[in-house]
Amino acid sequence: MRKIDYKKEIQRIEKFLQDYLIQSGMKGYIVGVSGGIDSALSLALAQSAIGKEKVYGVLMPYKESHPDSTADGIKLCEALGVGYETQDISPFVDEWFKDSEVSMLRKGNWMARIRMNILFDLSAKMSYLVLGTSNYSEWMTGYFTQFGDVACALEPIGKLYKTEVWEMSRHFDIPMSIIDKIPTADLWQDQSDEQEMGINYDDLDAILYAMSTSADLQNFDHKQVELVQNLINRSRFKRKLAPMPETPCSL
Amino acid sequence: MRKIDYKKEIQRIEKFLQDYLIQSGMKGYIVGVSGGIDSALSLALAQSAIGKEKVYGVLMPYKESHPDSTADGIKLCEALGVGYETQDISPFVDEWFKDSEVSMLRKGNWMARIRMNILFDLSAKMSYLVLGTSNYSEWMTGYFTQFGDVACALEPIGKLYKTEVWEMSRHFDIPMSIIDKIPTADLWQDQSDEQEMGINYDDLDAILYAMSTSADLQNFDHKQVELVQNLINRSRFKRKLAPMPETPCSL
Repeated sequence: MRKIDYKKEIQRIEKFLQDYLIQSGMKGYIVGVSGGIDSALSLALAQSAIGKEKVYGVLMPYKESHPDSTADGIKLCEALGVGYETQDISPFVDEWFKDSEVSMLRKGNWMARIRMNILFDLSAKMSYLVLGTSNYSEWMTGYFTQFGDVACALEPIGKLYKTEVWEMSRHFDIPMSIIDKIPTADLWQDQSDEQEMGINYDDLDAILYAMSTSADLQNFDHKQVELVQNLINRSRFKRKLAPMPETPCSL
Repeated sequence: MRKIDYKKEIQRIEKFLQDYLIQSGMKGYIVGVSGGIDSALSLALAQSAIGKEKVYGVLMPYKESHPDSTADGIKLCEALGVGYETQDISPFVDEWFKDSEVSMLRKGNWMARIRMNILFDLSAKMSYLVLGTSNYSEWMTGYFTQFGDVACALEPIGKLYKTEVWEMSRHFDIPMSIIDKIPTADLWQDQSDEQEMGINYDDLDAILYAMSTSADLQNFDHKQVELVQNLINRSRFKRKLAPMPETPCSL
């Protein structure tokens, strides 16, 4: 696995956030705060890059979300000194699914897209850009909702592996309850990213990194390499713009 | 302006739709039917490519949508013999904006994203791919909602100019009331694309095409060329994936 100079890297991301905001002509960054580590780090980077007055958090719990998620999100916003608001998404979820039995996957995707809609509407209202919160590990494995949690104006931590997100987080005022939390999409009780993907982040990141450098994969567990390759292949469509037929047949 | 061999071009798009469906392993195509010409042509192409049994229309009116939109959409689905359903999006819009005064732009973007969410949920429920309905003229000018009406699995008419969409539509069983309709996003009474953009589609398409071939723009109205160039520049961010800082600083 690569070794990152976190101090330098933080400065580089901060500059990216500063430059992009000026170039866009917008007034600040708005971030969906889930209570997890990715949105915590994105919020902290924005706050340290452009100042707490220009960064805004939005908590969007569902009635079945873990209560700690909201509590941790609020603790984070207060630790960083940024403004925030809470928008309960339950009415938008219950109105659509009513009492019908649906898979947690469908429900989770619906929720992620409602949150995207709320963020972009507040973005328009406040003239703030929607800051993304996706990391490279979830981006490559497709562990996200297309047009949902990955929909944003720019991705500050999009090239960082999940294990690096944890490392970088220690450089900021992020509550330990967020850093130490088991990573979860929080769609149901005791959901865990690692259980759902079938691999832990240490192994996943090591394999993804080895693949990205075309390194020898012999030293890795064969089944795990296959799993990661499958996750990458099956999610390829999520990382691209919609395909179109090429330029039309002229007469 | 280029001259298209519509018969050949229709065959080529149909083949694209056939091949893509097989490759995806999904069962059919689902299309948001607005009552306008773009979704009508996309639906008709899908129906003729893979058969009416595997194509499904979804009408998603808002309470203030023009009643003709739904009536025309139903007429279309029945003319093509495809299944369809109607989902009123009003509860999702009114729940969010309540009685607050908001711009039509914010309301329209919210509506487009709710429609996207509905289409993708039905897509998951039915194992049908969401078929896009965007044309090249609106794509290049940014006349669409990011993560809204352009969110789809594939774009069958994404390389056709709006004026070509009209031409191609005459080859299908599309009701004349749809073909002859004044193009509108139908966000408010008597809205018109051409009025809102400040240019009619004949001129817009001619200028866009001239730009795409690097042709001489001297023969066009100078103000109109400038308008189109501004529309293209201002919407560039909508046609790209979110930018990220490059690969991190290694130690």
